[in-house]
Amino acid sequence: MVRKTTSRLADGRELIYFDDTEPYVSAAAVREAVDVRPLSPREPAPRSAASTRRDPVSGEWVTIAAHRMDRTFLPPADESPLAPTGPGQKVPGEIPDTSYNVVVFENRFPSLEGPPTTYRDEPLRQERSASGRCEVICFTDNPATSFAELPLSRVRTIVEALTDRTRELSALDGVRQVFPFENRGEEIGVTLHHPHGQIYAYPFLPARTQALVEQSIQHKQQTGRKLLDDVVAVECAEGTRVVLETEHFVGFVPFAAKWPVHVQLHPRRDVADLTELRDEERADLAVAYRELLRRLDRFFDRPLPYIANWQQAPVGEGRDHGRLYIELFSLLRSPTKLKYLAGSESAAGAWINDTTPEAIADRLREVATQ
Amino acid sequence: MVRKTTSRLADGRELIYFDDTEPYVSAAAVREAVDVRPLSPREPAPRSAASTRRDPVSGEWVTIAAHRMDRTFLPPADESPLAPTGPGQKVPGEIPDTSYNVVVFENRFPSLEGPPTTYRDEPLRQERSASGRCEVICFTDNPATSFAELPLSRVRTIVEALTDRTRELSALDGVRQVFPFENRGEEIGVTLHHPHGQIYAYPFLPARTQALVEQSIQHKQQTGRKLLDDVVAVECAEGTRVVLETEHFVGFVPFAAKWPVHVQLHPRRDVADLTELRDEERADLAVAYRELLRRLDRFFDRPLPYIANWQQAPVGEGRDHGRLYIELFSLLRSPTKLKYLAGSESAAGAWINDTTPEAIADRLREVATQ
Repeated sequence: MVRKTTSRLADGRELIYFDDTEPYVSAAAVREAVDVRPLSPREPAPRSAASTRRDPVSGEWVTIAAHRMDRTFLPPADESPLAPTGPGQKVPGEIPDTSYNVVVFENRFPSLEGPPTTYRDEPLRQERSASGRCEVICFTDNPATSFAELPLSRVRTIVEALTDRTRELSALDGVRQVFPFENRGEEIGVTLHHPHGQIYAYPFLPARTQALVEQSIQHKQQTGRKLLDDVVAVECAEGTRVVLETEHFVGFVPFAAKWPVHVQLHPRRDVADLTELRDEERADLAVAYRELLRRLDRFFDRPLPYIANWQQAPVGEGRDHGRLYIELFSLLRSPTKLKYLAGSESAAGAWINDTTPEAIADRLREVATQ
Repeated sequence: MVRKTTSRLADGRELIYFDDTEPYVSAAAVREAVDVRPLSPREPAPRSAASTRRDPVSGEWVTIAAHRMDRTFLPPADESPLAPTGPGQKVPGEIPDTSYNVVVFENRFPSLEGPPTTYRDEPLRQERSASGRCEVICFTDNPATSFAELPLSRVRTIVEALTDRTRELSALDGVRQVFPFENRGEEIGVTLHHPHGQIYAYPFLPARTQALVEQSIQHKQQTGRKLLDDVVAVECAEGTRVVLETEHFVGFVPFAAKWPVHVQLHPRRDVADLTELRDEERADLAVAYRELLRRLDRFFDRPLPYIANWQQAPVGEGRDHGRLYIELFSLLRSPTKLKYLAGSESAAGAWINDTTPEAIADRLREVATQ
């Protein structure tokens, strides 16, 4: 369905084109464009600037990435590193070809990179290399659109690309979770407006996945069932917060929604990650996901700053507790007001939501486009 | 040392003056000023708008507070609700008297309030009343100063006030943790510029405390020792991140600092909460804490937006795993750039720090004022 072409950038980073089903974009028939920028070969960051450390008090792994301070910040349109190469570009970007459908490449300023190494392994002093991988995924070569406005065929290509990346990155040494996400909007600190997402391959279980695994182990012991299976079943049975149903997916606002706009999209059956979805499920996912994104921009009648994240099962230990779902949330609590994460949220970890999960669900149903 | 006078506001909320050691401020000799505003008596928020729900996937308790949408947002100086009452005030504020030293009162827009009630108690559906209490603490009646600029005697009064509140709020039905904090700076969403903090009395263990208790239980099983005792001991022994030492306190940047500016102040001995500090320790705390605050404003040579939080042991179960410490952090990663909590932090719970804990410690030592 999708044609994958792998190449290398001038500094050795991998760049992969994912071209839509035939007819392929003409200029991309072979994808032989070469990155001619005079980039130095990449060197691994030293331990003093890049590592992951386990906080003994919380059990969380924190990544130290002190070598990324110079990364690009809101460049003018003709200097965008995500634009295709062409006469309109003052500064050549990351993508050598003159047009593309979907493209994935290794982040030039990665916080996670390379193979795993243990630096220290004492109970209160666990420190390892910041291994893994950070990739950028460009959803389109059109800088002026958004994910929600893409044609379905393109959304499908993105799903295929994320599936491919999940498969490939899961196979890297030491990777424990593949985490695709999209940050959208200046309000959440987006530094490039071009529609794009990121894929992090973590060498540890992020705190949220760690918490899921712990809760799921307890639930399994108590009931014999899988926690996320039961969560989906209970939400479907109650129905109060369900906002979208398709043949293979169900969208609902979580029972204890933390964010003023917050919704999740779960497959109806137990699927560990994107690679386990069947072809017809991936097609259905594209439809359901785009519909939810479109509702977000209608929620406050303005383009919504949001974080989209694709939760997938751990690689290796804990895998049977994970289950694919996609989550969308926003910090906007009115058309003009942001929710700030202050003392209670940031310092105590106690979220306060200024709306109710049921009110969020009501609004998300009200703004349905289909 | 400090004189405490308790009174009631027009709508029944409690307001407490903490006056410095004699000579007391003259106008406040009796503190009999009455709140004459025509406020309606307070009514408890309905369950549909106010509850706490346990997220079954993360184990976190989330507070739903949909009744607070109209709270005050950056009012002009002559309408500040935290200013003392007087001819300069266009709108009467929360404090009836014409001047004050330190004052604490129940928040007019509380997210936690009243006695505990269980609404639902199924494994995946735990919902309770948003019980507990939210208080505001004004550090001074001067709107144009900051905590770091207060005289030591006033800092000491604040410590006494927080100690009093910890004692009183811990005794309320269902309270599991008393959590004082200060949000400072518009960048983190502060809605009132007047120097003030807040005190939350949670009816659940916030996620961060829950994580501490779990880590501490494991550590106890493995070593027989208390986790936070060992964390303080190891930091003192390594010394690399220690930035301040007094007779009774030590300040250090945590081994796995999450924030671009991040420091903690720990008592040298094991103390559960403020109420267990001895008199000379409270005096020492005032000195050490103010010094750290002063260093923050020198960190980037500008008033630093920060979150200060006073971590205290749980009330009841888990108490022996807790230990008092104060933490200060900022989202500012340069004089002009904010760290945003985007996909990795907000959605995965995987913090990335653009600096190293050791660099933070170097800078905090460099800007010492004593």
